[in-house]
Amino acid sequence: MQSLIKLSVIFCCIFLFACQGSVDSKVASSEKVVDDSVVENQALHAIFNRKSVRQYTEREISQDVLDNLLRAGMAAPSSRDRRPWHFIVISDKEILDNLGGQLRNAFFMAGANKAIVVCGDEELSDNCWFVDCSAVTQNILIAAESMGLGAVWTAVYPYDDRADIVRETFGLQKNIHAFAIIPLGYPLEKNEPKNKFDESRIHYNKW
Amino acid sequence: MQSLIKLSVIFCCIFLFACQGSVDSKVASSEKVVDDSVVENQALHAIFNRKSVRQYTEREISQDVLDNLLRAGMAAPSSRDRRPWHFIVISDKEILDNLGGQLRNAFFMAGANKAIVVCGDEELSDNCWFVDCSAVTQNILIAAESMGLGAVWTAVYPYDDRADIVRETFGLQKNIHAFAIIPLGYPLEKNEPKNKFDESRIHYNKW
Repeated sequence: MQSLIKLSVIFCCIFLFACQGSVDSKVASSEKVVDDSVVENQALHAIFNRKSVRQYTEREISQDVLDNLLRAGMAAPSSRDRRPWHFIVISDKEILDNLGGQLRNAFFMAGANKAIVVCGDEELSDNCWFVDCSAVTQNILIAAESMGLGAVWTAVYPYDDRADIVRETFGLQKNIHAFAIIPLGYPLEKNEPKNKFDESRIHYNKW
Repeated sequence: MQSLIKLSVIFCCIFLFACQGSVDSKVASSEKVVDDSVVENQALHAIFNRKSVRQYTEREISQDVLDNLLRAGMAAPSSRDRRPWHFIVISDKEILDNLGGQLRNAFFMAGANKAIVVCGDEELSDNCWFVDCSAVTQNILIAAESMGLGAVWTAVYPYDDRADIVRETFGLQKNIHAFAIIPLGYPLEKNEPKNKFDESRIHYNKW
């Protein structure tokens, strides 16, 4: 019995030591996030790992996940805080099929579980709606990456032929412009992000 | 001695039980990130918490942190993968002071520890450089938030008067356009993000 107790104590001590180590590494890494490490910074991780994903499984995207994507979109900054954005969520397979067929190089849209059309209202921001919609789109793409989704920025703006197709599909009013369509789904395969870092594009205090 | 061992065993058991609880809650919350929770998703957290910060402490931004910001900028998607971006990092206090004095409503720039000027090259992407630069700017803002920095999107595009000031300051070639300036520093005060979620902007399958 006594040797059993001793064994338990030794085991517990080892376990406690391991626990302590894990706590220490947590503290150290949370300090590191601010200063010089991306390892534990999930936001940087999502930014660096975002990539264009065009093939998806049939897994359903839940309303909760969709809500987070839309909230992320609306968390973007906008010129003079005009918030000139609207979102059309497409879950109807027929609409996805039709858009995939009509829009040039957008066949992959037919395989998406859902898509979000990011639109801008020129009555709210005549000279900046497309700049603001770009930040909105980027927020949604990073949010998608962070939740394990695949997505791809499918440009509508500044192409009139694509804009006409989307306008007709949804009967958009004159002041509403489709900016981009983001098809969404869980990735069929593992996709690797590109490393686009290029030091020659960085200038210090002068060109 | 024996009662001491017994006490140790009881203590260890309590500790082990607590550890187990913490492991369980971790598993549950990591599942939740994908499905319905933002609590543990630092990327969503950074997106939702990004806000305009215009007052900064004198704390220096390290080169590592700066590198992460620039890497985040260059991780943005771009139309036809043209990557039409350039970055001017300003650490020279005189330049920050001058820009803060010359640009309308940009006095706060003088108090920044550093600033990044996001530029676009129209020779690389004539019709989309500003759309791509917008995604670049948003990436940098989210990265800044995630590393505890304060920042604010200071528009240059589409304002000719501001563009002229930046062009003259850095002697930019004709094809290079300043898009935005992002002053950066550690926040002087706690700033709260706006909640801009508006359900009326969401449409399902039709306008």
